[in-house]
Amino acid sequence: MARSRRVGEFELIARYFAPLARGFAGAGGLQSDNAFLAADARRDLVVKTDTIVAGVHFLADDQPARIAAKALRVCLSDLAAGGSTPFVYQLSLALPANWRESWVAGFARGLAADQRRYDIVLCGGDTVVTPGPLTLTITAFGRVARGKGLTRAGARAGDDLWVTGTIGDGALGLLAAQGGLRDLTVRQRASLEDRYRLPQPRASLGPRLVGVATACADVSDGLLADAGHIGQASGLAVAIERGDVPLSPAGRAAVAAEPRLWANVLGGGDDYELVMAVPPRRATALRAAARAAGVAVTRIGRFAGGGGVRLTAGGRLVTAPRSGYVHF
Amino acid sequence: MARSRRVGEFELIARYFAPLARGFAGAGGLQSDNAFLAADARRDLVVKTDTIVAGVHFLADDQPARIAAKALRVCLSDLAAGGSTPFVYQLSLALPANWRESWVAGFARGLAADQRRYDIVLCGGDTVVTPGPLTLTITAFGRVARGKGLTRAGARAGDDLWVTGTIGDGALGLLAAQGGLRDLTVRQRASLEDRYRLPQPRASLGPRLVGVATACADVSDGLLADAGHIGQASGLAVAIERGDVPLSPAGRAAVAAEPRLWANVLGGGDDYELVMAVPPRRATALRAAARAAGVAVTRIGRFAGGGGVRLTAGGRLVTAPRSGYVHF
Repeated sequence: MARSRRVGEFELIARYFAPLARGFAGAGGLQSDNAFLAADARRDLVVKTDTIVAGVHFLADDQPARIAAKALRVCLSDLAAGGSTPFVYQLSLALPANWRESWVAGFARGLAADQRRYDIVLCGGDTVVTPGPLTLTITAFGRVARGKGLTRAGARAGDDLWVTGTIGDGALGLLAAQGGLRDLTVRQRASLEDRYRLPQPRASLGPRLVGVATACADVSDGLLADAGHIGQASGLAVAIERGDVPLSPAGRAAVAAEPRLWANVLGGGDDYELVMAVPPRRATALRAAARAAGVAVTRIGRFAGGGGVRLTAGGRLVTAPRSGYVHF
Repeated sequence: MARSRRVGEFELIARYFAPLARGFAGAGGLQSDNAFLAADARRDLVVKTDTIVAGVHFLADDQPARIAAKALRVCLSDLAAGGSTPFVYQLSLALPANWRESWVAGFARGLAADQRRYDIVLCGGDTVVTPGPLTLTITAFGRVARGKGLTRAGARAGDDLWVTGTIGDGALGLLAAQGGLRDLTVRQRASLEDRYRLPQPRASLGPRLVGVATACADVSDGLLADAGHIGQASGLAVAIERGDVPLSPAGRAAVAAEPRLWANVLGGGDDYELVMAVPPRRATALRAAARAAGVAVTRIGRFAGGGGVRLTAGGRLVTAPRSGYVHF
């Protein structure tokens, strides 16, 4: 909900933090969301840290179990994008001064439910009290066969661009939660709001993408931004046909009623779908993996030599609505 | 600076978070500060997460490079207590709304200096903006020979209790920074304040304690609390002779001028020294390790069957001033 001022997150990382990661190859120059460490003789650890702040990354009125689930799932989404299987996580909980034990109990129940759902276990962390809003940091660890983890780099010219599920529901769900999208039915608005409040990370598909996708990211900053990050990290241009982008029935109704919402669909974040590069010859393998995982996949574009994101609608070039949701 | 209300941190962990860690042996039931994961065929990863909040865990007027150093060093202290050598770390930076690029630049310079000093490298993280105070979470990774990492458990009856360096300077330094300790000289107050603002983790000693100490913790919650945690995790009582506790010249001057400051010395936190159990037959090995690391070590007590912390002064039982600094 907060917007960029001064330098943005990516610029800040490139300017000040990437130089600090130069000495460790597994950091990948901080170009991907995940870091890679050795896990054992056969596997790598995929490591991802995410911080979410009440009123910035989630609505403070959310139930504690949902906040717990959101904190964990935004990390699980990145672990899936890395092709890894969830393993363990560390939790840092900064509680506001007026915290209540019943809130912590509900929060822990939410974690317990998702631990069972995603087969991941708490392994440590920290608990403090803050004069500020509730702030959660999770560092999640997944495991993937040695050297096989997926990153944003690795796409090749000629690879197709695919996405899972439906795009735009997260950003539209935030609008719905804030009282917008009045042209939609109560049921449609609720379904979008659910998508915003409770991400569904593609944890069952992620590990099946190893050997199928050449690059992968999750859609957390917005489809155009995240597809663009793959292009940039792979040194390629990416073309996307808007008409091919899969929308939910509620999302379709929203853009039909108000076409300028395409900006939110393509530029908003919080979808927690996967966006990936797949060579055409592996399309069948991808479809089989998606079927096994129970996840829909849709081809929406293609990688080519060059740079930048090229968006078309019905084949006609359109101006990309914005470069993507920026958390700053 | 904030004090306990309702349930404390340890109770909260035991009641709500330890059950979430039951499925993973490397979490040690959340009884130790560190978690243990396999690193490769020969080594374990020692993992530690610490969150520090401006105005709670450090003074908001501190220089950014010092805040960076403090955030990293509180974790390095735990890695040392685990017997491990620093490896990599993840950083989550929640910047207040009025952040300035020059602050981030200074912060990054502080990290760079400590990366060189402690041979550790950034491997990933997250950057967000918060409406609250600056909040930093670091998850640091060390490495130790497989199965050799030190925890709070493992002390045996008859083991001696040792500490590194001098005790109490952190808590006294906070008082000095807040304008207290007016009986001390400017130089003495500055030396204490330095200890509070800039911990000196015993990183060079930690790895040398493997095979020497049977249990180890860092003094972050206060000497009595942290020694007590070792006793509790090891199922033992611990006796401490106050007269043997090593004080700095400034600390000695402070308690001489105001004897009730013993409560801060023994119960305050932020010393970031190591407290450990060592069998008497390994005292020579400990002294050799300390000499090699350039760190002073002092025997201050002993473990025996039973439970609790028994504090004596000149051999006479005294009431423990308080059970230790609680971050809540």
